[in-house]
Amino acid sequence: MNRNPSLAPSLALAPERATADRGAHFLNLVADRLAATEELIRKQTTSEIAFIDDASEHIFNGGGKRVRPALLLLSSRMLGNEGAEDITYAAVVELIHTATLVHDDIIDDSKLRRGRTTVHNIWDNSQAVLLGDWLYTTSMKMALSHDRLDVVRQLCDAILRMTEGELLVLQRLGAIDVSRDEYFDIIERKTAHLFATACSIPAIASSSGADLAALEQYGRSLGLCFQLVDDLLDFTESEAALGKPVLSDLRGGKLTLPLIMLMPRLDSSRRQRIEQVLEDRDFRRIEPEQILELVTCGGVVDEVRELAQSYALAAQTALERFPASEARDALEFAPEFVLNRRS
Amino acid sequence: MNRNPSLAPSLALAPERATADRGAHFLNLVADRLAATEELIRKQTTSEIAFIDDASEHIFNGGGKRVRPALLLLSSRMLGNEGAEDITYAAVVELIHTATLVHDDIIDDSKLRRGRTTVHNIWDNSQAVLLGDWLYTTSMKMALSHDRLDVVRQLCDAILRMTEGELLVLQRLGAIDVSRDEYFDIIERKTAHLFATACSIPAIASSSGADLAALEQYGRSLGLCFQLVDDLLDFTESEAALGKPVLSDLRGGKLTLPLIMLMPRLDSSRRQRIEQVLEDRDFRRIEPEQILELVTCGGVVDEVRELAQSYALAAQTALERFPASEARDALEFAPEFVLNRRS
Repeated sequence: MNRNPSLAPSLALAPERATADRGAHFLNLVADRLAATEELIRKQTTSEIAFIDDASEHIFNGGGKRVRPALLLLSSRMLGNEGAEDITYAAVVELIHTATLVHDDIIDDSKLRRGRTTVHNIWDNSQAVLLGDWLYTTSMKMALSHDRLDVVRQLCDAILRMTEGELLVLQRLGAIDVSRDEYFDIIERKTAHLFATACSIPAIASSSGADLAALEQYGRSLGLCFQLVDDLLDFTESEAALGKPVLSDLRGGKLTLPLIMLMPRLDSSRRQRIEQVLEDRDFRRIEPEQILELVTCGGVVDEVRELAQSYALAAQTALERFPASEARDALEFAPEFVLNRRS
Repeated sequence: MNRNPSLAPSLALAPERATADRGAHFLNLVADRLAATEELIRKQTTSEIAFIDDASEHIFNGGGKRVRPALLLLSSRMLGNEGAEDITYAAVVELIHTATLVHDDIIDDSKLRRGRTTVHNIWDNSQAVLLGDWLYTTSMKMALSHDRLDVVRQLCDAILRMTEGELLVLQRLGAIDVSRDEYFDIIERKTAHLFATACSIPAIASSSGADLAALEQYGRSLGLCFQLVDDLLDFTESEAALGKPVLSDLRGGKLTLPLIMLMPRLDSSRRQRIEQVLEDRDFRRIEPEQILELVTCGGVVDEVRELAQSYALAAQTALERFPASEARDALEFAPEFVLNRRS
């Protein structure tokens, strides 16, 4: 497989259907281990407390892409690990991710997640706070079961960075002057760090420093790509495709990269439209279409997509040191899949 | 020191002032190590995120009795441990306790904690949720620093039990038929488990199974005693002494043991007074004095106090296997201190 020279065009041209088929093919490499991960998640989230059982079932039956477990298990396969540890860690990264979602949904008062009513909306904020705590702690306890303190430390760091990232978001809620640097600092913490941890955990066990650094680099770049695409989808996709309303970020008072790049280019009356939504936290004065039109005219969607492509390429480049294998092909393909996703 | 025969009278008669002086004397045994714990807490809760810094300072400068660190360090001293590990674990149990308080205060919408405005009232619920997450995870990361997985597992279990205990409380909020068994199940999880963990961590390191079991038994009994007294204080002390309003539990829709014991003894019109407050979650129809009068007449304060004394005695009995020492004297005195506290 020729990885280097012509990545960007191939990424840009990949038709969605073909991408999905290739994605399914690559996931097949770890299908058994993903199923075992799923089973472990169900087993570990049963509880004598009825609410924990019910809410866990609601969340884990509600779909979710299992991106982090899949990356961890593919990375594990590429390194030739076949043990049960990585199934545990795959479940752990998904539980950690889920705990952050449960708490973030309270904070943003999100109504929908993966097309389903959020936990705090079905039950209440109090129970959702405690469920998040319970999931975080259960994930820690599971992570301890293979006696690898270095892995558990990495996972703690990932949780700390995510929590700090969300606090940085809150500090700048409604702000009209969020800089590009601040944005990248936030998405590094909120998304890239856990991706890097998921991808590199299998290398912590195998103790090769260079493999570890390469997989961290891969996961970090892929995480940034993933978040840039996620933030773009909020402008480009429908509520039906996303499983949540469009322009959720702006409505929640959050500037993401497309608008951060657009703002300085607008005249003051157009910039004011964005500022008004940030202020109102709804679309009572400005229609969503007016914002979408600005974004389309400004050309920022293409610019952000190009940036996402450059991170996709960086992720693929980080894999060069590993011998050719189906698992490496799958990891090389993951950024392409992320770039082409619609939800 | 004569421990066994005449405990109950000595507990009942100990004047508050003398108890405080003896408490101070015993705490002096670990004063240096408590100061080191305090310093470690400050160091570990500094952050480049301004809010984490500010909120941590607000909490940890706001007093707090440091009961769990003191017990851990006294237990450690009794076993002859002098290393730095137990200072870390002392800080860890306090951080875990603090994280639960921050989240519980959101859940109960408490205005005051230790006489100070609660974190979610100074800042907001969202930041308080994230601060709790950050404190839990920081405590885990600190606990990992001495490479003792068994200790970290115990701490995870304590957090899980506390979270479950609080969920059980929420499930029965406003209920008029909470049983004595349910009450004890809840306080075991919410309080006794972390006390048992704090007291027994020094024995995990020293690997004596019998010491471990005795210290768990000690901590568990002391924790139950502590919680019974805590629930009594809500009826017997003033807002000024408590640093929070009186009858907070009832106002919050929670039945604790004094009222659980009282309810079946009341005629229906008197029982209705309690039910009305549980329903209203305030004192708009019933005056606090009307409730306090029922509690006083019913004699349940003395009964609950006697129960607390029996747990105090059980805690002291659990210490019998350890050779005489100043640290053992201090741990033997702790239940007396708990029984005589006013806040």
